[in-house]
Amino acid sequence: MQTEDLLKQVAFIKEIDKLKYIQRKTKLFNSDRYENDAEHSWHLAMMTIVLANHADKPIDVLKVLKMVLIHDIVEIDAGDTFIYDASKNHSNIAEELIAAKRIFGLLPTAQAQEFIAIWEEFEAGITAEAKFAKTMDRFEPLLQNTSNKGGTWAEFNVPYQQVYDKKKAIKDGSATIWNYAEQLLTESVEKGILNNK
Amino acid sequence: MQTEDLLKQVAFIKEIDKLKYIQRKTKLFNSDRYENDAEHSWHLAMMTIVLANHADKPIDVLKVLKMVLIHDIVEIDAGDTFIYDASKNHSNIAEELIAAKRIFGLLPTAQAQEFIAIWEEFEAGITAEAKFAKTMDRFEPLLQNTSNKGGTWAEFNVPYQQVYDKKKAIKDGSATIWNYAEQLLTESVEKGILNNK
Repeated sequence: MQTEDLLKQVAFIKEIDKLKYIQRKTKLFNSDRYENDAEHSWHLAMMTIVLANHADKPIDVLKVLKMVLIHDIVEIDAGDTFIYDASKNHSNIAEELIAAKRIFGLLPTAQAQEFIAIWEEFEAGITAEAKFAKTMDRFEPLLQNTSNKGGTWAEFNVPYQQVYDKKKAIKDGSATIWNYAEQLLTESVEKGILNNK
Repeated sequence: MQTEDLLKQVAFIKEIDKLKYIQRKTKLFNSDRYENDAEHSWHLAMMTIVLANHADKPIDVLKVLKMVLIHDIVEIDAGDTFIYDASKNHSNIAEELIAAKRIFGLLPTAQAQEFIAIWEEFEAGITAEAKFAKTMDRFEPLLQNTSNKGGTWAEFNVPYQQVYDKKKAIKDGSATIWNYAEQLLTESVEKGILNNK
């Protein structure tokens, strides 16, 4: 039984290697090199263990780690969706659920169910853990874009208000991080790397 | 105080982005593309949450996750050491400790101390958590090499016994995973992708 489980788990471990080929829209810090989803997920996990003490509510850090580690795995099938692409943003939830069932479904049944539930909890964004995980997910590209002269904001000419509306989710996980993030947004407008017209 | 801590933590978060540029000797699954340390660390973290139930002794999964997420950060300064390079293998422990102190030292003091202690615990390999983390670290490239017609074993003509001696550490964390790993090594010799002469 243990060996049977292990074979399924190894199949899953091999399959998720594909996350390293999923390219994001954002670039590494002070860089022209695009980030991939595996690197992004590692960075969010590091941010979680480093910043957990700024969470407004008590959080189960292990659960947040699981969320950020797995949150983008569905993109192996469904692809990366640009956060400021309104047309695509709403249409691929069904596609992502099918992906979750296929990929997590490679695992032994109980584990597959656990992973799907954690991914759904993250997507719903209601629990303290999901809110903090989303704080991490919004904060990393903000830091990247400010280090890259506006990065994707400048490249796709995304206006301040639209960025602000997306980044506001940071507030739901941590007031301290939001204060800092809001200040970075204001500074970005002042520096002319974020358009406020 | 919280803001002062946050500024130090953001400096650390930016610095560790460099892990994405540290290239390993092993390649992705069924691939010619080299893996980098950030991708590798993400994969070990995923393997940890997937395979934790195969640990021989009870483990604190959160601590193992912290270990695998941070274990290679010292390579930002000290570089990647090929596991079968005996000359380098012993000489860069001092170099890695200096790197740990510099990079983790960017964090607030208490956190810096915690991260250095976790890294040292991993390196010492004595606790159940360190043993399981090392099981993950040895198991991933084994899976990669078997998927890549021998990968680094074939490329650098590393003999079976030397590979076996390094992989044996898998046994210290999990008998089940070791049974499977040992079988993969035997099959690799039979397939002619691992040299047993």
